[in-house]
Amino acid sequence: ESANEFQSQRDCLAQKLQDTESMNQALEARLGELEQQLRSERREREAFRQSLGTLLQLLDGKLFEMTELRDALGKLLDSS
Amino acid sequence: ESANEFQSQRDCLAQKLQDTESMNQALEARLGELEQQLRSERREREAFRQSLGTLLQLLDGKLFEMTELRDALGKLLDSS
Amino acid sequence: ESANEFQSQRDCLAQKLQDTESMNQALEARLGELEQQLRSERREREAFRQSLGTLLQLLDGKLFEMTELRDALGKLLDSS
Amino acid sequence: ESANEFQSQRDCLAQKLQDTESMNQALEARLGELEQQLRSERREREAFRQSLGTLLQLLDGKLFEMTELRDALGKLLDSS
Repeated sequence: ESANEFQSQRDCLAQKLQDTESMNQALEARLGELEQQLRSERREREAFRQSLGTLLQLLDGKLFEMTELRDALGKLLDSS
Repeated sequence: ESANEFQSQRDCLAQKLQDTESMNQALEARLGELEQQLRSERREREAFRQSLGTLLQLLDGKLFEMTELRDALGKLLDSS
Repeated sequence: ESANEFQSQRDCLAQKLQDTESMNQALEARLGELEQQLRSERREREAFRQSLGTLLQLLDGKLFEMTELRDALGKLLDSS
Repeated sequence: ESANEFQSQRDCLAQKLQDTESMNQALEARLGELEQQLRSERREREAFRQSLGTLLQLLDGKLFEMTELRDALGKLLDSS
């Protein structure tokens, strides 16, 4: 092949490489965003689970107290 | 420059392009996985929220019924 | 003693007996009322205790259902 | 009538009066017991009503606290 032909192939490849590298950067940026989003959503989810767990413990406490009240009513009834 | 030089530059660029395209495919595959994961976690989250919402409605119903019971006890007390 | 004296004693006793018998009837009437009142109050009390017992059973049912709901919330939390 | 006859009537009435007065005392004793019993049962009943009223107020408090918990769960759900 002639030097011209090699030169034109080289220039064409250089252009393609540049485009592909740009695409690469865009993909990496998008990947970084998604990873950030996933981490953020998992943090939210964990915080939500912890709040829910805390509320369930409070609910347990209330149910226990209501059961005690029910027993007090039962004893009052039995003693009457 | 000589034809040899152009040819060697072309070959070098062709190799780099191939590597960059491989990297591109890997990034796209990873991106696809993450998007899939995000969609899946959001579906789970939505299903969780719906289950929680259903349980809250049931809880509302129970609290309403207990309030009615409490009122019945109050009326019994007032009538005695 | 003379016959007059005996006669006057007899008349006095007859009057006293009549008064005492009147008092007796009044006491028996009052006694009947009180017994009636006691029976009536005990019937009310028993009816009250039965109503209270019924309400306590309903309360038990509600507490059981709320405990089930609490467990469902706990399982939802554990599965998330 | 003869003095003997009056005397015998007087003695008979004196006996009847004594019996009736005994009966009277027995009735008054029984009446006192019943009045005591009624007062005692009404005191018990009042004490019972007060205990029941106190338990109802505690029950109100628990129901209020559970409603607050339910609202906290609702807000957690809405914020997620």
